Formats: sequence, structure tokens, C-alpha cells
Amino acid sequence: MAYGKVTQKVISELAGIVGDSYVWTTEEKREACSRDETTTLAPEERFLPDAVVAPSSASEVSAILKTACRYRIPVTPRGGGTGLSGGALPVMGGIVISDERLNRIIEIDEKNMVAVTEPGVITSEINAAAEAKGLAYRGYPMSVLSCHIGGNIAENAGGGNAVKYGVTMRYVLGLEVVLPTGEILNLGGKLTKDVSGYSLKELFVGSEGTLGYVTKIILRLQPLVSDRAVLLALFADTESAIAAVPHIMTQGKLIPSSIEYMDSFCYSAACGFLNEELPAEGVGAVLLVELEENGQDQLDLSMETAGLLMKAYGASEIYVADTRSSRERVWAVRRNIDEALRAAHPVQADEDISVPISAIPEAARALADIERRFGVRTANFGHAGDGNLHPTFLKPDTMSVDEWKRTVNDIEWELFRVTKELGGVISGEHGIGSKRREYFVSLCPSGNLALMKKIKKAIDPYGIMNPGKIFDL
Amino acid sequence: MAYGKVTQKVISELAGIVGDSYVWTTEEKREACSRDETTTLAPEERFLPDAVVAPSSASEVSAILKTACRYRIPVTPRGGGTGLSGGALPVMGGIVISDERLNRIIEIDEKNMVAVTEPGVITSEINAAAEAKGLAYRGYPMSVLSCHIGGNIAENAGGGNAVKYGVTMRYVLGLEVVLPTGEILNLGGKLTKDVSGYSLKELFVGSEGTLGYVTKIILRLQPLVSDRAVLLALFADTESAIAAVPHIMTQGKLIPSSIEYMDSFCYSAACGFLNEELPAEGVGAVLLVELEENGQDQLDLSMETAGLLMKAYGASEIYVADTRSSRERVWAVRRNIDEALRAAHPVQADEDISVPISAIPEAARALADIERRFGVRTANFGHAGDGNLHPTFLKPDTMSVDEWKRTVNDIEWELFRVTKELGGVISGEHGIGSKRREYFVSLCPSGNLALMKKIKKAIDPYGIMNPGKIFDL
Repeated sequence: MAYGKVTQKVISELAGIVGDSYVWTTEEKREACSRDETTTLAPEERFLPDAVVAPSSASEVSAILKTACRYRIPVTPRGGGTGLSGGALPVMGGIVISDERLNRIIEIDEKNMVAVTEPGVITSEINAAAEAKGLAYRGYPMSVLSCHIGGNIAENAGGGNAVKYGVTMRYVLGLEVVLPTGEILNLGGKLTKDVSGYSLKELFVGSEGTLGYVTKIILRLQPLVSDRAVLLALFADTESAIAAVPHIMTQGKLIPSSIEYMDSFCYSAACGFLNEELPAEGVGAVLLVELEENGQDQLDLSMETAGLLMKAYGASEIYVADTRSSRERVWAVRRNIDEALRAAHPVQADEDISVPISAIPEAARALADIERRFGVRTANFGHAGDGNLHPTFLKPDTMSVDEWKRTVNDIEWELFRVTKELGGVISGEHGIGSKRREYFVSLCPSGNLALMKKIKKAIDPYGIMNPGKIFDL
Repeated sequence: MAYGKVTQKVISELAGIVGDSYVWTTEEKREACSRDETTTLAPEERFLPDAVVAPSSASEVSAILKTACRYRIPVTPRGGGTGLSGGALPVMGGIVISDERLNRIIEIDEKNMVAVTEPGVITSEINAAAEAKGLAYRGYPMSVLSCHIGGNIAENAGGGNAVKYGVTMRYVLGLEVVLPTGEILNLGGKLTKDVSGYSLKELFVGSEGTLGYVTKIILRLQPLVSDRAVLLALFADTESAIAAVPHIMTQGKLIPSSIEYMDSFCYSAACGFLNEELPAEGVGAVLLVELEENGQDQLDLSMETAGLLMKAYGASEIYVADTRSSRERVWAVRRNIDEALRAAHPVQADEDISVPISAIPEAARALADIERRFGVRTANFGHAGDGNLHPTFLKPDTMSVDEWKRTVNDIEWELFRVTKELGGVISGEHGIGSKRREYFVSLCPSGNLALMKKIKKAIDPYGIMNPGKIFDL
């Protein structure tokens, strides 16, 4: 695709749409939109847009996209900038649409148990607004305190509760979306059931901002569950920790709201980062198992069942966090692994494979093998209950950056090859974005890729919407 | 679209693909594929295909579709024939693909908690196979004892457990699908999380067989819940029964696995049909509330909460069915409403609107108004917990069939107008099919329709796949 330039004429048109104050070409604003949290990029790598624009309504978004179509200018949507696959990076330059003015929770509708929100709201604010009305929004990506709900839609965000509650798509009942060519569509509604035409809204969820710009979201809420506890189970090694996971569900007949896994390296790093003193003696791997029930008696029973099973399958110790503050302490460790690893090892590559849960032990063995063969420290953690692992490869101090880049490339090909062999996919929740595009295009069956391209072309004939992500047209 | 004819040459090609024994042109076989359970069709209305073919593998389906493309012959997929919107009717003639040989449950994979199945399996057989391994498949359309899982995928079937467990799409982890042009795609897998490319499998779920032919399905299973009870709550009228529904969830913090509604007319008709003697004295409307918990104590608590709330909101009596046989007795009444109404009133029109739950009382008032204005008896029942109602209009004995057709047309326009006004859709789970196509095309916003057509054209360039359904190209 050949793209047009953001000329002064284009800037004037954009200003005419959103007002002078909401179009920026300053270095500072452009710089702020030039990076996300993708770790494989070197610190000096950035992608500057030519302009940043902040619309306040669907009709303004529509006018911006019509202008972009007319001049064939790439458009990149940007939310909280917490993405891990370069999805929000303007890799072709052009215009960034910021969601900073589309930041209202429009409604918590208790009667229908739904939230209606704009895309620029931080996910944890939706959780809090629902909770204040005795309801719960079940999205819980690990970046919940900073990511935007619009980004959650774009990436079909998963996170720490997916084993029980599924991923973002399950909760998306309706979307207002502006197509790349400017049409504003309303899809779905405050409805549980809808087979009136194709499943269009699902197509936009997880499309990484390449098919349109979401301006309004209707989310399903659920009743709050009253009682909750977290078990922190210590194991001698990864193999035994992972082996215990399916038994909790199949033998225990429990679906915990979370079953998270950390190897001892991640666990110690996060504890150290937070100055947190949790038991660590002789620990090779840790499971964080969160249980939720209505009623303390039922919760006690579930904790006992899960605890007994984990002991039977090799846990040496189990610690119970059953107050809000102790639960939050344990969760903070899990949520801060990323930052802790980054603080100590700024040059790294974090991955996001998703495999059948029965294949996790084999994936773990493959990772140990990779660590050995490539001589690269591999931190391993993730959402064990749903088969989504985040192995993170850390550059050895002795390795040059060039050698590191080659090595990471080799490691990722090997990891993705094994993942595919195990019936898995190369991204469970972070997305393909620009980071995994080449791998994806190479590994995706040609028929699947051809169908995606047909859909992309049908919806975005000029290829302006978040180009350079997932695949190239 | 201009279609080709099923000539002897075409028949020979089909026989070359599946073998002589599995291509039929007999009146008997064609007749068996000429109807479904759509009630608005007069008994003499039928749609005969020119040929019926029964492939036994994806590659045979692929070869059939390639032949159909070459000769531009319409292809209609057929499952259990239990559809209520004409989705499986070969309204343009051509070839029917029967799923009768694609009828194996391939695997119940306990470790990954999934079932792998072909499309021609009766849904209740999947429920039973999962249960035999201590697991549960949560699909529960009311036709569960006769519908095929392939049809459930086509219609994104809902049913009686959607209030808690959602609709079919939630459980579809993977699909093998043959595109109209013959390519075989594998989408998803035994995976909870997957953001590796667009949400393609979701596009096929609920597309009513117009985008491809599904040959394999991977379904998520869940642990069996051990304890279950059904409350049958009697109310003086519809208004008060419906008003109680949201309170069970928002105040009671319970999500029952079912909240079904029947007016007294449906309730009496089904009881009569089954020779069932359930309490009926002074009953204007009935709620069937099913609760599930692990543990009898917890179940007792939930029953008490739900019971107290329904009493507080107007239930005159509540009967408890807490054995398997008593639960099944109560459920049989609910499941047999359709047949009971049809036995007594063979000329009727059944609908399937889906509205926000808070709008149910207004929908019920609109139905009462329609009954009054048009002088047509309206039986009302449905899935109150998720806002999906099945008002059924019964032809008065005194009305001619011609007058009836005109009247039903007027009634449906009025019903759909109100439904749209309430933020609802004209089909929650039965589909648009051929039955609602004209209404859908007229009521669907033009941008949404245009996008569906673009997708259809991109996937089915010759328009051979189940033409005459949802919309015309």
C-alpha cells in the first residue's frame, strides 16, 4: 500500500473536525504515542506519528476516518499504551487517534446488569463502578489498573480470571464501531441472545484495531460473589505444580476463578521488587489459586478440596489469603512479575503462547530445553488454568545486543514451532500486533490467512486502519 | 443470482464423490428434506431439493461444494430438521447436504475438558457422553432430544440455560469448516485463549449455514454440578411473574441456571398434552426456576433465597422439584409447550424476540395489546431470565387461511416494530432463515446489512451456500 502524507491541509481538516486544541503535532505528544510496553523493542526504537487527534464522539471519529481515507493516511488507535505486541504503535506514521476524550462510563444499568462505556475508561474503573452497585465486571487483565477497555476489546483481553470467566468477548453484548470508511454501526445491544444476522460484533473483538474504531461498548455484568480466598501453593518444581492443575477441576469439580503459575525465579523477582516477604524456602514453582463462593461454608469446602488435591499432587505448603488485604498482597506479586523482570532485565522478550491445558507440562519441558540449548535464562509464568503461558527470555549480560536479536529470533521460531505442534497458538491474549506479524504470517495456514485478508479488504479497502499489524494486505 | 440445474452429469459427479448409495433423487428422500418445524408454513408448503447427498468427511464436503460452485447449484445444509425459521429448507432447490453420516462423537477429552464431535450428533447425546465422564456440556436448546449439534452451531442455539451459561458460541472452541468454494479451514482448537488473527470461528457460529459447512466441532465442557432443584412458582398474572425475575439475580445475587416463563394458557396446554397434573388453580403465569449448586446445604440456601424473593414479589405458591424424576416432569411441561400448542392449533405463528430483561413487562403489555387489537389468541412463554420470548399467535377457528396470513403479517410487523423500539432483535435463537428474511432486511440498519453482504460475497462469491436465508445478495 502506498500512503499519503499528513500535510498542513490534512491538519486543518482534522482541526475543523475536533477543534484546534485536540490536534497535536508537537514532539512531546507524538513521542508519547510512539511506544507501548512491548519488550522486544530496543529503548531507542520508536514509531512517531505525524499527528495525534483526540475526538470526543463517534461522528468525529467518522469524519477523521473519512479524511484519512480521502488522503490514504494510516490511522492507529491508541488506548492506555499498555499493549505487549505493538498494536498501538504507528509503525507507518500517519494519524494516532487517542481515546483520551472518549473516557466516560455512560451508565451502570442495574436492571439489565450491563455497563455502557466509552473506550478510554481504565478497566479497573469499570470494575469499581460495577462493584459500587453490587455487580461485577469480570474482565481482569493483569494491566487492569492502567489498560483501557477499548484496548481490551481490540486484543480480546484475557487475564487472570479466564479459567472460570472466559475472556473479554464473553462480556461484550454490544458495540458502536466506526468502520475505516466512516460508517457508524451499532451491533448487538443489552441482549443475551441475538441471532439476527451475522456475528459482526465478535469480528471486531480481537481484531487489534485493524477493522474499525470502537466508540461505545455494552458489557455484561454479573452479581458479585460474596466470599473469596486465595491459596498460594508451593511446589518443588514446575512439572509437579502444572500436573496438579487439571485435577483441581476434573477431580475437585471446582472451577477456580484463577489458577496462576509462577516459577521460583518470577516469584522471587516480584517479591523482591515489592519488598514482599512471602514464604520462598525450597520453592521451585508456585500456584496461585483463587476460589469464589457465595457463603463462607461453601468457600471453606472448596478451599479444603483444592488444598487436599494440591497436597496430594505434590504441594509442600499451602498458604491461605482470605482477607481483602492478604489477597491483594498475593495478587500484587503476580501482577508485578512483568515490571519486576523488566526492572532487573530491561532487555528481554516476553511471549504469550496458548496451549491445551494437558500440553502445559510438555510446553514447560520445551522451555527448559530452550533455556539449556540457547543459554538464555527463561522466566516462566502465566495462566495455568487456561493454558496461557508467558515465558520471558532475558538477555545474558555477556551477550551483545545484535547477537541477542538473532538469538531471540531463533528462540521464538523454536517456541512457536513447538506451540503449533502442541495444538496451540502463538498469542493467547497479547495479540499479534507488529511484534509477531512475521511469525504469524509464516505459521498461519494459507486458507485462514486468505480469509482474513478478504475480510480486511472488504471492510478497509484503502488499508488505512492500523496497517502493519497482524498481516500485510 | 441465476442458478444452474442438477443434471444427470451433476448427479454422477456427486456419486463419484460419496458413492452411489449416498446420493438420492427419490421422492421419499427429497420429501424428507423439504420441511422443518417452522409453523408459519401451511401444511402443503414444501421445498423439494433436486438431490440429497450424504458425505462422510470434510474432503467429501469440499468436493461436493466445488462441484456445486462449478455448476452454480444452491446447496442447503440439513441437520435434525428441528429448525423454526426455515434455515434448512432448500428454498431454491438444488442439493441438500445431509449430516446423517457425519454423526460421531469423536472424543470426550477429560484432561482438556472438551468434546470433539461431528455435526450430525444429537445434542442430548453429547450431554450424556460428557456426563458419563463427570463433565457437562451446557447447550440446552428445548429441542435437545432431537436437534443436531451442527444446527446448534448454525443458529447459535440458546435455550433454557442461557441465563447462566450463555448460548452455544460460548462453548465453541474450535471448528473445522468447509468454505462454499471448497477450502477446508481449521479454526481455534482446544484453547481458552486465542488472539492469533481475526475471530473467524465466531463468524460461522450463527451464520445459519450461509457461509460454509461445519464438519467438526470442539466444545468446551465443564465440571458437573452435583445438586440441582427446580422451583415452580405460580403467579396471578404475567406482569407480576416477570417483575420478579430481575430481583432473583440483583437482590438474591443468584444466577439460576434457568428462569423460564409460561402463561397459564401454555402451562395448561402442555400439562394437558402430557396428562400431567400440576397445580393450576387460579394460576395466571408460571416461572420455572432451576438452581444448581455443589452441595445440598448451598442449594437449600439458594432455594430459600429465590423462593423468598418470588413470594415477596407476588408468587402465590412455590412447588419444589428436587429429585431427578420430579425435575424432569416439570421440564417436560416446559419443553412440550411447542408441541402441545401445535397439536391443538396447527395453524399458528411462533416468534422469538429478544429484548433487554427490563423491557419484558413492556413487551408483555404490547403482546396483550396485539391480542386485543387483532382478536388473535396469543400464547406467551419463553426464557424470561435472558429476555427471550416466544409469543405464539393462534389462528381463530372463524378466520380464513388467507385472512390469517394477512393478519399474521400485520401482527409480526407490529411485534417487530415494538421489539426494535425496546432495543431488542427479531430473533434471539431461532434465526432469521427464510421465515424472517423480509422483516430482517427491512428492519436491519443499512450499514449493518451492507457489511454482512460484503462478508457473504467475500466468502461465497457464487452465492451457492444456503441461498434465500437471512438476506438476498
